[in-house]
Parts: sequence; C-alpha cells; structure tokens
Amino acid sequence: MYIHMSKKKVVVSLGHDALGYTTEAQRDAVKKTARALADLVEADCQLTITHSNGPQVSMIHKAMTELRRVYIDYTPAPMCVCSAMSQGYVGYDIQNSLRAELLSRGISKPVSTILTQVTVDPYDEAFYEPTKVIGRYMSREDAETEVKKGNYVKEDPGQGFRRVVAAPKPIDIVEIESIRTLADAGQVVIACGGGGIPVIEQHHALKGASAVIEKDAIAGKLASDLVCDELIILTGVDYVYKDFGREGQTPISSMTATEAKEMIAAEEFGKGTMLPKIEAAIAYLEKVSSGKVIITSIDRVKDAIRGKVGTTITAGRNFSI
Amino acid sequence: MYIHMSKKKVVVSLGHDALGYTTEAQRDAVKKTARALADLVEADCQLTITHSNGPQVSMIHKAMTELRRVYIDYTPAPMCVCSAMSQGYVGYDIQNSLRAELLSRGISKPVSTILTQVTVDPYDEAFYEPTKVIGRYMSREDAETEVKKGNYVKEDPGQGFRRVVAAPKPIDIVEIESIRTLADAGQVVIACGGGGIPVIEQHHALKGASAVIEKDAIAGKLASDLVCDELIILTGVDYVYKDFGREGQTPISSMTATEAKEMIAAEEFGKGTMLPKIEAAIAYLEKVSSGKVIITSIDRVKDAIRGKVGTTITAGRNFSI
Repeated sequence: MYIHMSKKKVVVSLGHDALGYTTEAQRDAVKKTARALADLVEADCQLTITHSNGPQVSMIHKAMTELRRVYIDYTPAPMCVCSAMSQGYVGYDIQNSLRAELLSRGISKPVSTILTQVTVDPYDEAFYEPTKVIGRYMSREDAETEVKKGNYVKEDPGQGFRRVVAAPKPIDIVEIESIRTLADAGQVVIACGGGGIPVIEQHHALKGASAVIEKDAIAGKLASDLVCDELIILTGVDYVYKDFGREGQTPISSMTATEAKEMIAAEEFGKGTMLPKIEAAIAYLEKVSSGKVIITSIDRVKDAIRGKVGTTITAGRNFSI
Repeated sequence: MYIHMSKKKVVVSLGHDALGYTTEAQRDAVKKTARALADLVEADCQLTITHSNGPQVSMIHKAMTELRRVYIDYTPAPMCVCSAMSQGYVGYDIQNSLRAELLSRGISKPVSTILTQVTVDPYDEAFYEPTKVIGRYMSREDAETEVKKGNYVKEDPGQGFRRVVAAPKPIDIVEIESIRTLADAGQVVIACGGGGIPVIEQHHALKGASAVIEKDAIAGKLASDLVCDELIILTGVDYVYKDFGREGQTPISSMTATEAKEMIAAEEFGKGTMLPKIEAAIAYLEKVSSGKVIITSIDRVKDAIRGKVGTTITAGRNFSI
C-alpha cells in the first residue's frame, strides 16, 4: 500500500545574503542558497519560496534610467515594471539552481516561479512618509526634478540625494490561487519576489504603485494564506538576539508571540532589519496559531529545523489577536 | 446536476503587434490584446498564452549595457538573464490586463505567468550560423570587440554593426509540469515568453545559452506537449497568403499539413515571418493529428474561431510524419 508521507508546508523567506548584488555574484550566491533549500526539501518540507529584491530592482531601475539617457525614444520604466523584471531575474536564478541541486541529489521535482502582484491600500500611511531608499545618488538639481514629478527624495549629507518610495502593508496576493494550486500539487514555488509587484485596485484594474512591499511582510502573509506549518525566515544572523549589538547580547532560542510583542514594545528589534521579521512572524501566528516561525541564517538552516540553533517563535498559550 | 462544459484547450501565440516597443506602448497594446484573449475565454477556450519578446529583450539588453558604461562594478547581464527579465516584464503586463478585462466581463479566473526555461541542443546547426539580430547598432571597433569575445556580428551597410545570436530549435520545456498543473486546474497560464529562456543541459545543471528561440516554434511545442485542441497564432495579417506580396496574392482559408509542406517546398512563405508559423503548425499537427491551427490577426480572432476569417490548418487525411 502506498503511504502518503505527510510533508510540512513551509514558506521560506530569503534575504539579501541569499542573493548577491551583481548578476555574477547572484549566480554564485544562489548556488549556496539552493543547497540550503534542497536540505529543506530532503527534510520533507513542501516549499514555497519568497525573496528580497532590493539590490536587483535597484540595478534594473538604474539600467532603465541610463537607457533613457542614451535612447530618448524609450518611455520611463515605472517601479512596478522594474519589480516585474526583478522577479524574472531572481526567480530564474533560484529555480534554475534549485532544480540542479535537487537533481544532483536524485530528486526530480518541478520548481517554478509565479510572477506575483500584491495589492496595497492607496491610503496606507506609508505613502505619506516613504522610507525605502532606491536607485542612484542624484545631484540637487536632479532631486528637485524628481520632487516636481511628485516623487520623494532623501539627502545623505555629503553623498547626494536618493529617491525614497513607500513600503505599504500587503493586502492581497493577486495570484494566490495559482501559487496554491502548484503548492498543493507538491511542487516548489517561488512567488511574491521582492514583496510582490505592488498594485492598487481601481475598479477591475490593478495599477502599479510607486512602492516596495517588505519581503518579510509578504512572507508572513503567504504563510498564513497557504496555512503553512512553518515560516522560515533566513537572514544574516543565526538567532534573534536580546540587546543585539550591545555588550552581553543574548541569543533567543524560543519565544512566544506574546513575548515577541513585549520585546517590540521595549524597542528590542532594529527597524528595517529584525523588526519586520518579528512583525511578520506575529501576523502569521495570529492567523495560524498552530504554526511555527524559525529565524536563522542560511548556513544553519539544516540544524535549525532540527531545533539545534535559531530562534523559534510560536503562538504560545493564551495568545490572541 | 452540474454539467462540466468541455472547454477547448488552446495555445495562443502572440507576436510583436500584440505588445509594443516601449513600456508605455506595451501597456496600451496589451489592453487591446487582452480584449482578444478575453473573447477566446468567453468562447470557452482554456488558454495557455505565449508571446514574442524581441523588442523587449532588446530594450533590456541595451539598458544593461548602458548600466555597465556608467556603473563599472556591475557584471554583464547575459542574454538568458535579459530574457528572464523580459518574461517578467511582458508577463506582468499581460496577466494584469487580461485579469482586468476578464473581471470587467464578470469572469473571475486566475491568470498567472510561469517563468520558463527551454532546453536547446548545443550542437544545433543554428549555433554555427546565428541569424537573430539583437541590441543596438555598434561601431566597427565595438563590433570587433564582440567578435573577440566569441560573439557574432552582422553589418547593415551604412547603419553599422549589430550582434546576432542563434535561433536553435526547442527541445524540452523545463517547467512543463507546472504549466500543465495550472492549465489542468482551469487557469490561464502565460508561459515560454520570448520562446523561453534558452538553456543547455550540462549534467544536472542548465546553463543559459546565447540564443533566442523562435516563439512560434515554442508555441507549437507547447500545444503538442499539452495535447491542445487548437493552436492559434496571432500575427499582423488576417490570413496566410499564396503569392504573398505579389500581385494577385490569394488568402488561404484552409489547407492540410501536407499542402502546407508542399508550399514550404515551393518557398511560398517568408523566412523569419510566415515560415516559422507554418513549421510550428506542422510540428504540432504531427503530434496531435486531431488538432487545428488557426493563423490570423488579433483584430479578427473572434471571427476566426467561428470560421469566418483566418487560415485553418489541419492534419488532413493520410497525413503522416
């Protein structure tokens, strides 16, 4: 009789460390990342993978800007288009490398990338105070032109000006049905790259938004939409730390969502680094109370899923929304 | 009792006319294309869509070249990476527009893009005589540098030199399982954009090839892999013509694959324009003898599926490989 091994449904979130800043660096970095992901597949995880795209979308945005300096006939490429290109670019490298790594271990499993749009609220507070820095340094003159176009810029004293865009909260993953269909068929899916292409609903249409969605935020959303057993957030450190960066910093091996909330209130976590990961963990556990979040580094993920390293966050008793 | 309406499984191949040459032109062109595709969905077609990417991959290739002129730290973006970016770019616009068009007609149906690699044979004759022109015009000096790098260039007298790459035949669609899973679930899938990212098998790995696969060739392969009922090739003309471009050119409303082969032998079809479409049609009918190919324009597709316009090709009696 055929016994169906029950696999753990897992969303993995990959950070900058997993990718690399140039086309060559990415190809190499992704090979290492593929080994970590293949370890998870071998440990009976049914993977849905999401990834950051900061350096990639930045590179593409710069390239499209330079293109227009030389070839004036081309129209500007909005952020949503650059984001779509970056999903193609990163998704290709990950699916290619992971497929090869799995095959080299004797595992033949479809791996593919779903181009993903994510709706955001045009009235999200983030649009009134953009925080995500993108693109190249500009002169004061160019910065003023951007401001006239309705864009935001930020000055780094001594270095120049850079464009900043909003990082609104994700509302809905537009292609969730396609992602779910592939995941339910036992396939590895790469989706919501770079947080997804941010779009705003206008009647039946979805209009690209000048924004970037936090990839951790979308990872939490993806894990709850798919009702995953685990959300694994891979980052540059092995653990979440208490008193991070200070003398006597302490690795946290496990905590409950309630404890995590208390630590957020105590401003324990760095904005733009650990804080969005913890917030994503809590958001997921609020929807999937039986779930488990692991935060660790790519190098240690194999040990982390065996409970030997990394920080585990669970809903804990009496946890409510 | 619920009666399952049997839908026609259809692959649609979109040419340059369906897309547009700049980001803005594409957004507008794709809206019109989406209406034609939605007409097919309303006519009970279960669509898998593929598209060309010539102008798009060319634009991205140019942008990545300009990027490196300004930011020397970036490594070159090989053709496979540009191709992956173009699948993201075009796929996003098509899935976004088609979803909106379907919703405006009261149809809620998942539409998504699968990033697709296609294997080619490194010994394909095409690699010895590259024919596909890509990128910008170069000076003689730059052209010589390209040749030193092992690339091919072609001179357009009076205009300069351009890079040419091979157009090898597709062998396998790497992500075919994922495409089939979504199609079987009744979803609209966009796949094999620009002919697919051409890759060469090296043991377990797939290495990006400096090549471009004909989108018509991959459309035929996709339609036969999915055992589709119909292959619809949309192009700039309403019909395939006999004596095309000559006085007394005659539209062909139907022909058999055998007749098509005879016309190929008589050099009736333009290389790089109609010939690859007819070849794709024959390749598909050789695998799916019950199949039907329709070649027409985007504007007339609604009438074409009712048999009012366009060229229909079928296997015909006694057709064998």
